[in-house]
Amino acid sequence: MNITLCGGGSWGTAIARLLSNKGHNVNFYIRNKSVTEDIRKNKENIKYLPGAKFNNDINLTSNLYTVLDDIDIFVLAVPTSSAREILESIKGKISKKTIVVNLSKGIELETLERISEISAEVLKDNSFVALSGPSHAEEVGKDIPTTVVASSTDLKAAKIIQHEFSTSIFRIYTNPDLIGVEMGGALKNIIALAAGMNDGLGYGDNSKAALMTRGIYEMSKLGIAMGANPHTFNGLSGIGDLIVTCTSMHSRNRRAGILIGKGKSMNEACKEVGQVVEGVKTVKAAYKLSKLKSIEMPITNALYQVLYENYDPNKAVFDLMTRKNKDEIEQIFFE
Amino acid sequence: MNITLCGGGSWGTAIARLLSNKGHNVNFYIRNKSVTEDIRKNKENIKYLPGAKFNNDINLTSNLYTVLDDIDIFVLAVPTSSAREILESIKGKISKKTIVVNLSKGIELETLERISEISAEVLKDNSFVALSGPSHAEEVGKDIPTTVVASSTDLKAAKIIQHEFSTSIFRIYTNPDLIGVEMGGALKNIIALAAGMNDGLGYGDNSKAALMTRGIYEMSKLGIAMGANPHTFNGLSGIGDLIVTCTSMHSRNRRAGILIGKGKSMNEACKEVGQVVEGVKTVKAAYKLSKLKSIEMPITNALYQVLYENYDPNKAVFDLMTRKNKDEIEQIFFE
Repeated sequence: MNITLCGGGSWGTAIARLLSNKGHNVNFYIRNKSVTEDIRKNKENIKYLPGAKFNNDINLTSNLYTVLDDIDIFVLAVPTSSAREILESIKGKISKKTIVVNLSKGIELETLERISEISAEVLKDNSFVALSGPSHAEEVGKDIPTTVVASSTDLKAAKIIQHEFSTSIFRIYTNPDLIGVEMGGALKNIIALAAGMNDGLGYGDNSKAALMTRGIYEMSKLGIAMGANPHTFNGLSGIGDLIVTCTSMHSRNRRAGILIGKGKSMNEACKEVGQVVEGVKTVKAAYKLSKLKSIEMPITNALYQVLYENYDPNKAVFDLMTRKNKDEIEQIFFE
Repeated sequence: MNITLCGGGSWGTAIARLLSNKGHNVNFYIRNKSVTEDIRKNKENIKYLPGAKFNNDINLTSNLYTVLDDIDIFVLAVPTSSAREILESIKGKISKKTIVVNLSKGIELETLERISEISAEVLKDNSFVALSGPSHAEEVGKDIPTTVVASSTDLKAAKIIQHEFSTSIFRIYTNPDLIGVEMGGALKNIIALAAGMNDGLGYGDNSKAALMTRGIYEMSKLGIAMGANPHTFNGLSGIGDLIVTCTSMHSRNRRAGILIGKGKSMNEACKEVGQVVEGVKTVKAAYKLSKLKSIEMPITNALYQVLYENYDPNKAVFDLMTRKNKDEIEQIFFE
């Protein structure tokens, strides 16, 4: 198939490589020209995904408009804050039959919209598929077995992506609950920031597991209020992605949380991590959504205070650990 | 309160220390006399829980019969395979008002009974409370914040244990779903063995998160078939304990799995880990239960083959990763 992939970060690169190695005809648009040159020369994105070689030729370009004709699939692999701009720029230039696949996980801050909602506004006629699940780029780049979910309200489009993106080590399951899949992918970054703070502050595995248990509960509460199927949060794009993001050193959100726990400011932590830390913006978006929907989200609330109101991370984690019984998950389940 | 605790392993020692430091009058029965002497001399169980000092005096004994009169609480902290023997030995010797608290997590192999069922058979009149959740002894011994669940069909007994065992860093919530709490605590050790194998074989965080997602699903399926509340598996004694056991190096079951993944036999792995690896027996018990209840449990089945039928761990993990779509969790949720 003819596929154009937009975005040369680690995850975009891992999927571009996977699709190209599988034999698809891949156009790879990267804004950063030195990264483009790197891949051209070395068959490898040394800056963002070292060690993952492209086996086949790939059409690298710094001009998106040259690679929009006759494509079957357009893959969006940019930070959430750039998604609308990119989708606007391809409007009217891709076929109505082109399937849009999104790899990024976030909520647009200004509108509080999911990427699928932005896509539906901008590209009315194109089917949209979200790819999500426990999938660190570093491992997919090394062909370590990985399982993800392709989610769409258009099951036919989801099945096409399942077929065209699957390999023996990259397995894809479909899930029609697009709201749940997108909300899980976005919100888990908040809990990963909190899990990182737990680690940076020197708390332990016991308290991190308690935070994560509380975390998936508050994620699903907001998701359900927005129309998600509760079961989705028990699947790969929910608890699966939460686990990998809270426990792996590959996670940028967890690493940022560790640095904040060790006393760095939000800006210092983001700078040190390098690539975009989606969770920092997602905290603000989820905080606003929780107020709009009147959903109690203690971890999101604590992170908002730490990141945007200079609250002490140590106090924030301690507050979470010593909340009154009545608010706790076990009680809520059995009220 | 007057409390007798039976069992000088790491978890028994952590709880004996916590109760003693809180000011309770604790009798600590340990079969192993050198461990008893160690604690007497050093105020610390150097063999099983180094670094965790007892602040107050504790009544150490190697004769259980001397510490059964006038006790409010009897705490059982022995391997599952010894639970019945201990409970039989105190039958008729403790008051009907003594609450029995169990710390161990397993299923009796011969009868396929949970510890609460054994207790109900042997000590008909005594209330039973299971303490469970993400709680590595090593961290509780260092006063790192930890949250657990006290579960009982007798809510009054659960509330007494909640009150008497809680400290500012050890928080307890009650849950009336004793079946779900006991099954979660036992079955999670199977998934931890598999997660360890994943790590020992050199698979990654992505595949481990997928295994754990699939794991909590198969745990809850068997639990529900036995009468558990599905919500319990989303709580501290379900996903919380699963997370900590699959990701922490404190977990004996995970460590045994790592060794098996690296090529050691089950017996070699258990020997190297030292203390009892409950999951090894739980695999057999859960395998039998899954057949009795006609519940498909692919991870338990794979572990049974590896541990008891000499199946290659590498093939077992690969089989799990490449199962047919129709069997996978996302599909099952939305069938």
